[in-house]
Order: sequence, then C-alpha cells, then structure tokens
Amino acid sequence: MNIALDLAAKGAGYTSPNPMVGAVVVSEGTIVGKGWHESVGGPHAEVNAINDAGNLAKGAALYVTLEPCNHQGRTPPCTQKIISAGIKRVVMAMADPNPNVSGGGEKFLKQHGITVESGICRNRAQRLNESFIKYVLTKKPFVTLKCAATLDGRIATRTGDSKWVTGKASRKYVHGLRHSADAIMVGINTIKTDNPSLTTRLENKKGVDPKRIILDTNLSIAEDAKVLQVASESDTIIITGNSKSSKKNRLEKMGARVIDADIKDSRIDLNALMIRLGQMEITSLLIEGGGQVAAASLKAEIVDKICFFYAPKILGGDDGVSMCSGTGPDLMSRSIPVKDITVRRFDDDVMIEGYLT
Amino acid sequence: MNIALDLAAKGAGYTSPNPMVGAVVVSEGTIVGKGWHESVGGPHAEVNAINDAGNLAKGAALYVTLEPCNHQGRTPPCTQKIISAGIKRVVMAMADPNPNVSGGGEKFLKQHGITVESGICRNRAQRLNESFIKYVLTKKPFVTLKCAATLDGRIATRTGDSKWVTGKASRKYVHGLRHSADAIMVGINTIKTDNPSLTTRLENKKGVDPKRIILDTNLSIAEDAKVLQVASESDTIIITGNSKSSKKNRLEKMGARVIDADIKDSRIDLNALMIRLGQMEITSLLIEGGGQVAAASLKAEIVDKICFFYAPKILGGDDGVSMCSGTGPDLMSRSIPVKDITVRRFDDDVMIEGYLT
Repeated sequence: MNIALDLAAKGAGYTSPNPMVGAVVVSEGTIVGKGWHESVGGPHAEVNAINDAGNLAKGAALYVTLEPCNHQGRTPPCTQKIISAGIKRVVMAMADPNPNVSGGGEKFLKQHGITVESGICRNRAQRLNESFIKYVLTKKPFVTLKCAATLDGRIATRTGDSKWVTGKASRKYVHGLRHSADAIMVGINTIKTDNPSLTTRLENKKGVDPKRIILDTNLSIAEDAKVLQVASESDTIIITGNSKSSKKNRLEKMGARVIDADIKDSRIDLNALMIRLGQMEITSLLIEGGGQVAAASLKAEIVDKICFFYAPKILGGDDGVSMCSGTGPDLMSRSIPVKDITVRRFDDDVMIEGYLT
Repeated sequence: MNIALDLAAKGAGYTSPNPMVGAVVVSEGTIVGKGWHESVGGPHAEVNAINDAGNLAKGAALYVTLEPCNHQGRTPPCTQKIISAGIKRVVMAMADPNPNVSGGGEKFLKQHGITVESGICRNRAQRLNESFIKYVLTKKPFVTLKCAATLDGRIATRTGDSKWVTGKASRKYVHGLRHSADAIMVGINTIKTDNPSLTTRLENKKGVDPKRIILDTNLSIAEDAKVLQVASESDTIIITGNSKSSKKNRLEKMGARVIDADIKDSRIDLNALMIRLGQMEITSLLIEGGGQVAAASLKAEIVDKICFFYAPKILGGDDGVSMCSGTGPDLMSRSIPVKDITVRRFDDDVMIEGYLT
C-alpha cells in the first residue's frame, strides 16, 4: 500500500478537483502492474494499474489508495474494470469520503464475489488527500497557512526586508507546495513590499502555477506589479470591495480577473470568500502571508494547516514585521492550539507543521 | 568512550568550577572499572575508575573524557595514580583546554611508557564541557539564552500572561538546565510579572539551585517577591546601579546580596558584569528572559548558545510580549546567525538549540 501511496503522490498538482490515487496489482507476491491517476479527466489509477498488468491481473490482488468508483464520471466506473479483469481481492486504504457514494464501490465488488479489505494505511491516505476530502465534505478549499520567520518570530525587518529569511532548500519546498495547490493567496501589502510573481519554479520538472489570489480591499494594486505581468496559464485574481473603480477595466484588459467580495468590518469576508473559491473548484489554498492576512485567516478560522519555517537567525528587536498582526487574546489559554505537530529540517531551517482542525 | 561520557554527565550540577569527567578501565575487552568526577573537591574520575577496577587495572587501558591532570590541585595528580596502577594505555577524548597545562598529562604519561591516544569522541566531549572550556579560556561564564514562545514568537499575552506557554516535558528539561547551571539570570520585569522562585525542581533527585541573579537597575524589586523568600542554599544576587538606596540594607538583611554594577547608557553593562561573574567562579549562566534581557544580552554579544522552545499554539496578534524587545536591524542580512542547529521534541513542544559563537 505504501508503494501505491507513493505512486498516488506523483499526481500532486495535476488531479484537482479529483483526488490523487495510486494502485498496484499483486500476483503471487509480485507486483505485476502499477498505475496512478495522472491528470484530471485521464484514466483512474485502477485502470492504469490493471492495463499495466495485462493478463496477469486475472486472479490477482489490487491495492488501491481510495475506494474504487462505482459510477460513471469523466470515465467509466472502475468497479467494472476490476470485475472484468478478473481481480479476486481488493485492498483499499480508505473509503470514498463523499457520503453519497461512500461504500458503494466496496459493496458492488463484494456482490461480485471479490474479497475487499479496507483501512490499510488509512492515516497516510487521508493526509495525502486532505484537500480533496475537505472539499468533498464542505465544498470549501483546504487552507494551508505558510510563514517564514526568524527564530524570534519576525517575517521581515522594520524596513520590510525579507530577502531572505529562509534558505534555498526551504524555498524549493515551498515551490512544491505551490505546485500542489490550486490557488495561492496573499495580501496587497505583500504585493507592494515584495512585488512577487507568485509562480511555481521547480528544478526538475515544469511546475503547475496555482491561481494567484490577491486580497485588495481598495483595489490599490500598482498596475506595473509583477504579478500582473507574468506569463502563466493560471489566472491572477484580485478580490476587492471596490470593483466599481475604473481601474477594474484596465486590470481586466491586462488579463487579471477582478472579483467583487463581501465586505465585513471594512475587510474582505474570508468565510464568504472560501465558499466562493469552492464554487470556482479551488480545492486547496496556500496562504503565503503577510502578517495581516495570516492573522485575519486565523481569526476567521478558515485555516486547516500551518506550515511555519524558522530560519537559523535572530533579529533581536521587536520592530520587525510580526508573523501575525492585530489584537491577540488576553490569556495564554485562549491561544489557538495546533495539533499533530511534525518537524522537518531543510538544511539549517526548521519547519513546524500542524493542524488547526 | 561514549560510556565514559555518559558517566561524566552524571556530574552535571555538582562539579563546577571543575569539568565533568568520566572514565572506564578496560581489560581484555571487558569494562572492569567505572568512575566519574562526582563533586568538586572529590576524587577525579580516573581515580574512581582505577579504584573500582582494583587489581584488574594492572595492564589495562583507561578511557577518559579529558586529559588526566599532571598537577597537584585539590587532589594529587591523576597521572601518578595511572602510572602506579600499572595502566598500559590511555585513550582520551580531548586535551586539557587550559593552555598552561594542556598536553602536560599526555607528555608525562608517554615519558613513563604509556601509550596515549587523543581525540576520540572529541566533539561530544567538548560540548559536554562547553562551559568549563569557555571559562578556562576567558574567565567569563558560558551563557545560554533560554526562551519559551508560541509558534508566532510571543512569550506572553498582551496582559503578561505566560502560564503556560510550553508543556510539562519542556519545563522539566528547563529544571535540568537550571540544575546544571552555576547561575540563572532574569530581568526585574520577569520578577514583577511572573514572581518566580527560580529554584530547581527535579523529579527523581534533589536538584542543585543555581545562584539567582536579578538585573534591577533601579533597585525596584518588591520586598515580598518570592525570589527573596525562598529556602535555598544558593544566593539571590541583585545587580543594580542604585546601591546607595536605603533599600539595599533591608534586602541584605533578608539574605540577598546586592551588587553594584557598571552602568552604560542607563543600563547594566552586561560585558562588565560577565567579567564580574567570572571572578565569582560562575562558569555557566542561564538567562531565562524576558524580552528586554534577551535583546540586551544578544546586543552585548555575551550569548554563546540559545535554547528556544516553541509551544504548539498561536497567539495570532502582534500585541503579545516579543521574544526580544527594542530596535532590530534594518536588513535581514544583518540578523544574528545561529550555527550548529539541533532540534528536539518535548511532547508537542519543539526545542531549537544553536550556537552564536
């Protein structure tokens, strides 16, 4: 199953809004077929693995990271393919998270005399498709908040300088996060201070650019901002409360999309925005800061996961830019708890990852 | 040698201003004697290990974590003991760091026909005695700066609440740090806000209390502060620039020591203070905050090592108490680099340790 999960992960960045799925066909203790869901609209992992196995699939076992589908979607149901190939046993990591179809594939296979086991490596399978699962259940994107700070918790100096907080290895990993995310979101201050292009740069393969979402309540973005000039297949989307401005037309002529947002307490209503992004089939959102957007996202309780990088340096004052801005709680016991902490090293940077939900 | 280093570490908290030393006697591939330097003034590790081996020391090898002494100190020279016991081979982790005697023990042993090897597990031996080494070379204490913060870098809320940032396992480890340190230092704000007793509480053994040093430029400490009432064999030392105050006598009658400090830019001159603490035979100093003392120590460049704990929680605002206060640099490239980073977990807390020197 771990091999199937590794195969599934190869689909990262290419399958949304579908899940990543991997499958292996095992005959007499030997892997005779491998497959994964390579891209949205393409064949499912089961089909690829069974085709890869050819005649050896007859009487074999199929290990698959998600319950095989039992319905006609963009492709025919996988259960049919499994039955017609003569698979005798199916081992799956987890059931389909969609309550409308969950268990249907398993039931259908059993009715056709196939042995089915479920729950092998379930935790890893659920983490792999955490975005897909949340999206299926809530129709809202899975939100990861990324931050890069010094050991004393500053994302930039008092002059706004943030080049570079973390090292090359961390920044490379972040480009992997961008590749896997449907969209990336920053505040207008980040655009003004850092003027980023917000594209994905990977070393060994062409990365997929996420949609670039900019929170810009007053539509104050500079028309020569890099993010408006990038050559990218993905949209730059400006979320604003000021779409009546004449600037909107000029920005749209430059290729950007300008979307009218609900405003709450003179700020963009992030909860309403998440519903809107879900309607746009954005299943995963990476928030890359700065401090205002981070704090606002945490307050709105839209963040599912944090991914904080700490660089091996100390700024040594309290005038640098904070990881979160605004008002915090009065008591330590009212802080936001982070669960399931994992720690990774990227050279001398330390990444702490955890879940808020 | 690793067994000898483990034995040496048992002396933590009891040997200062001497080093921690461990030794094992090995005869025909078997450990026949073990010993460590158990407390200042007591027998050295070599003597304990050779006595433990008894007659089996004859012809055996001695593994020792530091070059054996060749001079009469509080106890007779270990080299004599090694020769008279009939040890044939000495393996040592590192030479004596004191330039006046370094290599003397090795030379003397060789002159008496004993084979000597040096440098086995040197890095671990140097880390174990990092305080002793710095003190011998500079006559100033080795300074560790400890901080406990939320993931967004806050040591307390806007109301000063810091109970608790980190969890039990981290706090237990910090009591181990206190046990091993000759002195612990805090600023007067920490006394006013947290009213700590600054003693060592260990679970399985009686901890040694470090000397408690309080930086109190204006001698504004409350006379009912806990730190002035603790039943402890160690001194509470108040460092002030205001020793002419009548309060001084009252504090001294309560058992505290009040020491006049050099003042620089209306603050206690920490560089001058380190020389003073060295004269008091304080070889290791643990700084436990708060933000002002942390920032001042970093600016004065007295910190050798940092030990930052991050608790699995986010405060989510910028009004909490910062890890460092005051003015930071304008550029990220002017931040203080931290070297030799190591990461440890204490339940869901993450500790990042590193060196500034």
